[in-house]
This record gives sequence, structure tokens and C-alpha cells, in this order.
Amino acid sequence: MELSAIRHIADKRCCLSVGNNGFLFRIQTKKSDVSEIVLHTLDKYMKPEVKDTKQAHMMKKIATDRLCDYYETTVYFDYSIRCIRYYFEITGNDGEKVFIGSEYFSGNEITDIDRMYNCTCKLREEERIDVPDWAAGKVVYQIFPARYATTKHVPENVWYKAPIGDKTDLKGDLRGIINTLDHLKELGIDVLYLTPIFKSPSTHKYNTVDYYEISPDLGTKADLKELVEKCHEMGMKVILDGVFNHTATDFFAFQDVMKNGSSSRYYDWYYIEKYPINMGSGTEIPGYLTFSYYGGMPKLNLSNDETAEYFTNVGKYWIEECDIDGWRLDVGDEISHSFMKKFRKAIHSVKKDALIVGEDWQHGRDYLDGDEWDSIMNYSFWRLVKDYVMDSSITASEAVEDIGHIRGIFPPQIFNVLWNLIDTHDTPRFLAMCGNDRKKQRFAAAMSLLLPGMPFIYYGDEYGIGGENDPDNRRGMLWDSKYQDEDTYSLYRRLIAIRKEYKDIAQGTITEYRTDDENNIIIYCCGEGDGKVTVILHGKGDRVTLEEFAGRSNLLSDKKFDGIMEEFSVAVIK
Amino acid sequence: MELSAIRHIADKRCCLSVGNNGFLFRIQTKKSDVSEIVLHTLDKYMKPEVKDTKQAHMMKKIATDRLCDYYETTVYFDYSIRCIRYYFEITGNDGEKVFIGSEYFSGNEITDIDRMYNCTCKLREEERIDVPDWAAGKVVYQIFPARYATTKHVPENVWYKAPIGDKTDLKGDLRGIINTLDHLKELGIDVLYLTPIFKSPSTHKYNTVDYYEISPDLGTKADLKELVEKCHEMGMKVILDGVFNHTATDFFAFQDVMKNGSSSRYYDWYYIEKYPINMGSGTEIPGYLTFSYYGGMPKLNLSNDETAEYFTNVGKYWIEECDIDGWRLDVGDEISHSFMKKFRKAIHSVKKDALIVGEDWQHGRDYLDGDEWDSIMNYSFWRLVKDYVMDSSITASEAVEDIGHIRGIFPPQIFNVLWNLIDTHDTPRFLAMCGNDRKKQRFAAAMSLLLPGMPFIYYGDEYGIGGENDPDNRRGMLWDSKYQDEDTYSLYRRLIAIRKEYKDIAQGTITEYRTDDENNIIIYCCGEGDGKVTVILHGKGDRVTLEEFAGRSNLLSDKKFDGIMEEFSVAVIK
Repeated sequence: MELSAIRHIADKRCCLSVGNNGFLFRIQTKKSDVSEIVLHTLDKYMKPEVKDTKQAHMMKKIATDRLCDYYETTVYFDYSIRCIRYYFEITGNDGEKVFIGSEYFSGNEITDIDRMYNCTCKLREEERIDVPDWAAGKVVYQIFPARYATTKHVPENVWYKAPIGDKTDLKGDLRGIINTLDHLKELGIDVLYLTPIFKSPSTHKYNTVDYYEISPDLGTKADLKELVEKCHEMGMKVILDGVFNHTATDFFAFQDVMKNGSSSRYYDWYYIEKYPINMGSGTEIPGYLTFSYYGGMPKLNLSNDETAEYFTNVGKYWIEECDIDGWRLDVGDEISHSFMKKFRKAIHSVKKDALIVGEDWQHGRDYLDGDEWDSIMNYSFWRLVKDYVMDSSITASEAVEDIGHIRGIFPPQIFNVLWNLIDTHDTPRFLAMCGNDRKKQRFAAAMSLLLPGMPFIYYGDEYGIGGENDPDNRRGMLWDSKYQDEDTYSLYRRLIAIRKEYKDIAQGTITEYRTDDENNIIIYCCGEGDGKVTVILHGKGDRVTLEEFAGRSNLLSDKKFDGIMEEFSVAVIK
Repeated sequence: MELSAIRHIADKRCCLSVGNNGFLFRIQTKKSDVSEIVLHTLDKYMKPEVKDTKQAHMMKKIATDRLCDYYETTVYFDYSIRCIRYYFEITGNDGEKVFIGSEYFSGNEITDIDRMYNCTCKLREEERIDVPDWAAGKVVYQIFPARYATTKHVPENVWYKAPIGDKTDLKGDLRGIINTLDHLKELGIDVLYLTPIFKSPSTHKYNTVDYYEISPDLGTKADLKELVEKCHEMGMKVILDGVFNHTATDFFAFQDVMKNGSSSRYYDWYYIEKYPINMGSGTEIPGYLTFSYYGGMPKLNLSNDETAEYFTNVGKYWIEECDIDGWRLDVGDEISHSFMKKFRKAIHSVKKDALIVGEDWQHGRDYLDGDEWDSIMNYSFWRLVKDYVMDSSITASEAVEDIGHIRGIFPPQIFNVLWNLIDTHDTPRFLAMCGNDRKKQRFAAAMSLLLPGMPFIYYGDEYGIGGENDPDNRRGMLWDSKYQDEDTYSLYRRLIAIRKEYKDIAQGTITEYRTDDENNIIIYCCGEGDGKVTVILHGKGDRVTLEEFAGRSNLLSDKKFDGIMEEFSVAVIK
């Protein structure tokens, strides 16, 4: 047995309170190395003569990645326990048995309480990682407002022009979104996420000039208020994009620093490295910290209390003013944890169940400990879908393992709210990435829509919109049916409907994973009893026939399933 | 190569800012599995045409434990870099080469920047784990004030009575400590740590009745002030014991809750589970959370802002009032992180370099991320010394590996301030644990005094005081020379003197570890050039002769080293 691969840290990531004296324990081992894991628990403080508290609990393998297996079990105590001591009894496939405690392992049962792991129950309860109740499994739709829908006159040859330029003005506005909400309702969207809408000179608006004003080209506060109200009436939540890592150079505080230098009262709002202030150009680096090395986006010093307060107030303002339901935080992985902690507290003080999602192209681990973000833009998911669908560079098993990795490294409540995306305004359209192969794009979308987490749809994908990297990935929305791919839309709509009907797809634990690498098939089940469905994904490869499922009903079709799966096809068998 | 054992998380524990654009990178692998690790770094945002930022850095193995090797390297960038992307190139002893990135490994060089690890430089700087400059390697002396020194008359047959009872009153007081400071100075102590001294009815005073008063039996505020002043004059720091996990039942807030029940304004200061309030007795559990299940120590709700503020104020008060230098936090591992973060901020607002040490019998990991504690009572060290010296149940190599584990899991700055103890008021005296074998006790002390970290001496150990478990481990200090073990004292004094002269013992990186398990010998070097010394430890076993070192000077003896090492002996070769 490979002891060096066994990982358990007695912290809130591996030993979590689940309420009602319940605790979820997690441990990982080398893949396929272990036949059984038993968790032994006892009460640190209870005298055995008063109550014998020793218990043994079988752990369950809940995921596997390329290298490791992940095990979990949840234990409920029948009284208010103060402090749990515990250790693991692990039996290897080679028959070796080992007992694992805190910094300790032995071939014999652990009896020294100091060599067991420790779980202070009240501490764990206090640091419980809670995500908003409403979010798990819900479908997110990202809108780039300047290019989504307009109430102004824009000629068709301008609106649908491709490739599109960075500064092309399609005059998209909030009223346009309001007027087209039926589309989202029909599609089955639960959460609307808008890229930045505050005052900014650019099309993308990631350089904010005024955080308290809607960009006039997009509309007014009244428009936003109405949009949110209408969304709420339709059962949708609205998330805004918070660009707090940096401002525009025209933001009042930076302007003041430019004007007054080190005597500016906003001097500490930024990280000025050299004076006089040099904005950089060409190969010259700006004399202050920025996003990237781009002088037009000076980086805010959010560790400064005053700056932090300004932006936590911004965060609160739009909730109080327009009743938005949360924030997506731009360049989240470059912003200080101290700010994020304050931000979460502030936001939750005005809306307890607001959702906070950070942009982090890696796993955002440090931000996801319960006191900063709830979720991330899940680019790990994006990478595995690219590998499996776009490049076909990984096998069905490897794809399942890469999903298993995500399941394995995150506590389950976070796994269920990850924004599982196949493209965004920061990537080429998935369709473009795979050479406009519609089968592949639909298949990738199906992967996101048939797995737990929050599937994320970048506007227009549901109609098969194209677009290479920024700015071409921000084309005008395909409102005219002559540009829409009907099959793509039907698939999206149907998948979302299935997801809503079979709740275990959205939030449940996936069971009975099977893969066939020769034929590139992934099969898994969601739910139990009447609610159980079987998902079949066939990646690159020849047509295959799955006799086992022939004659059953395929929720994606009106006909009985004939067992035939073409390349890049999906079936959801009832 | 065992890929499942390779661990690197791109957080502040594995990628640390060291200032001046320097970053320390850490990674662990399976033990003896890897021949070389190269760290590749590049600037995420710098365009290669502007500056080629790709660099390669060889990593160094800095520790080994039972299962893993730990590697580190520090990289300094020659400009203010915004964001580092990096990956590792690992060559196994089997010749296999693998490139490891974020959730990714490959046999080929990693070129996709999204599959590299990410280090946001400013973020890392902001979350730098800083410990007080003065602390690294310093020698701590723990005093149990009621039993250490008195200014009152206590008959000798009472003072030196053994075993001692819990309630035996030896009338120890602060003035007694003041009067005997020369002893600490002569011994070479740097830091004085007093177990609780605030108003409390018990001998140990871990149930506090008034946090703003010195227990009258121990003295007055003026006494504490004078004690700290004198210590400072002598170059010593003073650390008090903060018992904030719980109070005495006579503490005003608990009294109020007892009297007024749920209408008490202090109701939320505790965790009342049942009303009317039941203090428990016999096998009955108290109707409120407590330390352990003991009704006499009701647990404070430090997640309540008001309660937290009261106790952070206590923390500040004694610094402002008496100029103490830090706090040791009792039952630290059961206190909420939110309180600890507030406590650190509060303490540092009045003394920037105050030291905060938590009681955590495990590794205290979550508390040691730079914003809560600086250090822990290092019971991991205690366990390995018990195993190696008391039980001789582990080999020399295993002992070195257990030290390596501690070095491996902690960032270096924390490793250098761990309180490396061989006994405390909560354990039997080490001497008692090993059947009063003085050789073993001295040997254990030598291990703590000849390694990096903060060696921790429980009062009287330097004279070979005895004592089984609590309360017998709290006997009257051996002031009369007829009770003092002269050899033990000389060894302590000499070891501390050596430690002070050869600074690399106290803080340096240990090099050239060698072990001989057959003869049970550990050899390692500290420092370089003229400052270099070689430490030789011989555990249980027959006399051995180390010809290699014969004729050199042994700093522990006035004679040249003859190379002969008896069982449980130590040499420090120059």
C-alpha cells in the first residue's frame, strides 16, 4: 500500500460539520490501492466508564482521479459531542493493514489519544462552509450586455457582422435584456450573470470609472431595478460582475493620485511604485501596479481599510438599491483575502443568501474556505472538456477521472455550485475552438448540463453562435432565426428541462460510473428508484450499439432508444 | 516515480513571499523517489517580446520524514513581478521525467499557461507569515507560579514534599520570581512563560474569576510590572497564559447567566444548551458547553463579537499595563479562528512584535497561517523524544525523520519558533516518564537545546526535579542545592551557552544529517566555516567509539573528545 499518497488533514476541508451533530470526513489514497477504509471515532473527553463512545464507520469511495481515490463518510453523533478523536484503518489491496492518525501510522490499533486526529466540534460548526440554499445545480446564463440585445436601431449587417471588432458599438442595453427575458425563461435559465454594467468608456467595461452609476449607454438604475424585479418574478436570480481588482484611470481616486501625487488622500488606494506617475507605454512598465502590465487598469490596494470599505459599500449598494443576488468577482485570484472576507460579511449583512463567485482559472482553494467565495468560474471543467471533446486527447476514463478530481478536491457543497463552463467572454467560443463542429459543441454543452454543479451558458451558445478569441467571442446575439441553429437550441432546452425534472443530475451524487475507452463511452447514473436516469456519452469514435439500453426511453428523443450512439452523441436513458 | 505522493498547493504554505521580490517554493515527494526537481518560472503577464522571463531553478531537499522528502528553493526576481506562473520538472530515480502543473502532469514541458501553478505576488506578500524578529531559536522557561518561589515562610518539609497534592499551598508568588531572576539569567533563559496568574481560586488558575486582577495570593499588578521590567532589563521577554477558552463559574458573566438565565445580557457569552442551568455532576453532562465535560469551566462563545472584544481587550490590557511580550493561549485548538484573528490584530495594535503561541497538541496548522498564532507548544517534538529516548521504540533514523516531518510541514519561519518541549505542567516530568533515568532526561533536554526552534524548559528540569502526572508534576522548585542535580544543571547551562554562541544551532538549517541505526547514533552539522559544529547523539545502546571525531574538541567537556560515546550521551564537536 502506498502510504505516502494517503492524505487527510484534520481541518475544515477534510472534516466538516454538516449540522445536527453530523460531521463529514474525507480522505484520499493512491488510486486502486486500497480495499477498505474504516473510520474510528471516539469522544476525547468522555470517560469510558460514563459512556463508551468508540464507533467504527465504513468509508465510501466517492471519486477517483488520475492518481488518487477519494473516500467520504458522514457520522452523526447522538449527543452534543465536544471533541472527536479519530483515526483511519486502511486495508490495502495487497492485504496490508495500517492505522493512520495525526502524523502517525502503525500496524496496530491506535490507542494513544494524542496520536489520533482531532476535531473540535464547535470550531468545525463555526467554520462550516455554507453556500446559498438556492444555488446548487442551477443553470447560469452569461450576458455581455453591449452585444446581447438593443432597443435602438442597429442595422442587421452591423449586428451580425463577424468577426467583430473591439470597439464596434451594437448598442446593447439593459432594456434590451428586459425585453427578451422570455427567451431565458423558455430556455430554462435560473441565474443571469451580466458582465460589467457600471460607467466605463470601453465595450467590455472592465475598466470602471464610476461604480455607483450604470453606464449610460446601457441604461439607468431604474432599468437595472426593473430587470432584477422581472427576473425575480420569473424565478431568476441576477449576478453582477464586480471589477474590484483595478479601476479605470479615470476613476476619481486615481485621478486624484495623478493630480496630487503622494499628497493625494487616495495615494494608498493604489500601489504607486515610482513618482512622478508613469502610465507606461510600449515596452515600458507602468510605475504602479496594474492588471497585467496594462497602465489603463491601475490595481487597487484593497488591503487598505478605507479602500476596502469603499468597495464593500459598492457591493452592498447594488443589493440594497436594485436587489441583485450576488457578485462574480473579476480577477478574483489576485485580490487579497482580507478584502474578500470583509466583502462576504458586508454582502451577507444585506442579503444573507447572496452568491459570491470568484474568477480563478485554477481551483481557488484558499478563497473557498467558507468565509470568502462560494464558487469559482470552473476553468478546470473547461480544460477537461477541451481535452476530451475538442482535442480528443484524453480517454473516456481520463475525462471521468478529471471530473472525479474536481469532486475529490472540493467539499460536496462547493462542488454543487461550481460554474461549469465550456466558454466565456475570455475564451474563444467552444464552437470556434473545435473548428465549428456543431456536434462537438453540443456534446460539450451536454456534459456541463448533465453533471452536478451550475452549468454555465455563454449567451448565444444555445443558438450555436461562433467567434474566435476576444473580441470576436463577443458577437451580437443571434436573435434572427435564420442565424440560429435549431438543433442546438432544442438540445439545450431539452437538457435543461431534463435537469430540472431529474434533480439528482443537478445535485446528486453520481453513481455507477463506467467507461469503455475502446469505444470512448462514458456511462453513469443519477438518482435512485423512479428518479433514476442513465447518462451515456460517446466521444470521438465510430458508431457503437449499446444493446443493453436498446428499447428503453431516451429522454432526448421522442423515440425509443435503439442503442445506437454516433460519434459525439448523448443519451439520457430512463 | 510515485506521482500520487507529489504534493504542492499553490498557496501561502507552499509558495511564500520572503520580501524583496523573493518567493520560497516548497514541494514534497515520496521518500527517496526522486533524483532532481527543477522549478520553472515565468511572468504570467510579461510579453516574451518585451522580456524573456523564463527561468529554471534547482530545488534542494531540506527534510525527509518516514514517507516523504521535502524540497525548497527561494527565487528572487530582479523586478516587481505581478504574477508568477510555474511548474515543476521532476526526475525520478527510475529515470522517469514528469512535468507537474496545477491539477496537471505530463511527460512533456508545460506550455499552456493555464496548466501551470499561479502565484499572485502582491497577494502572497500580503499574506506573508511573519513571526516576531526576536523569537527564533530563543530559550523558553515555564514557571508554575504557585510552586516556583515564595517570599513567605514555607517549611522545607512542606515545600519539598513529594508527591504533591493538587491543593497543597506552597505560597509561591510573583515577588518570589523577581527575587530569583538571577537563576534564569545564569541559566541563559530568553523568555519567561508563566502559567495563569489572574484571579482564580485554584492552584493552577486555569479557571479565571477576574482577568483584570492578579490573583492576590500571587501578588499585585505592581509586582507583575516590576517582574516584566526586571526581565526586560536582563534581556528576557515575558509571556502570560491566556485562558480564554473558558472561565471559572464565578466569573461575573457566568454568574449573571446563572442568575438571570436567558434574559442575562451575557447569555450569548456562553453556549447554554439546557435551561435551567445544570452544572453537571458525576456522570451527568453540564447543560452548557465546557472545557471537557467539566462544569467548573464553562466554554466561552468567542464567536460572539462582544465576548471577543472583552477578551481581546484583556489581551491588550496586560501589554499596555505591564508591558508583557506575548500570550500563550490555553486550549487554543478549541477556540474559533475568528477570535484568534481579532486577538492577533488587537495584540499587534499595542505591541507589534508580541508573540502568540497556541496550545495545540497536534500541528495547529489552520492557526499558523500568519493571521492567528506564531507558534505552538510542540507536542509532536515531545512525542518523538518520548519514542526515541523514553521508549527507544524508534530508530535514530526514524527520530531524524520525525524531526524532518516537523521541518517539512511548516514554513521555515514557523519551524524556528516552535516551542520544543520535553514536558510541561500537563505531562509527567520527562524524568519520571523514563523511570528517573537522569541520563535519559538530560539527553532529551539536549535534543531540544541542540535543534532549531525554541527549546522549552519546564521549571526545575534543569535541576532534575521529579514528578508524575498532574498534580505531582507541579512540585516546589528545587532551590536547595542538596536537592539539585549538579550534572543536570551544568549540562543545561553549557548547552544553552553553546546554543547562544553558535547561532546556527538555534536558527540555521541543519546539514549533513547522518544516522547509524545499528549503534543508534545521530550526527548532524550546524553552520558553516568557523561557526560550524557537529552534534552527535547516541541513544540507547552499547558504548561506541567514533574515531572520526577523536582528538577534536567537544564543547560539552573541557577535555579533547576521545571519540567514546556512552548510551544516551551527547557531544558537540568543534
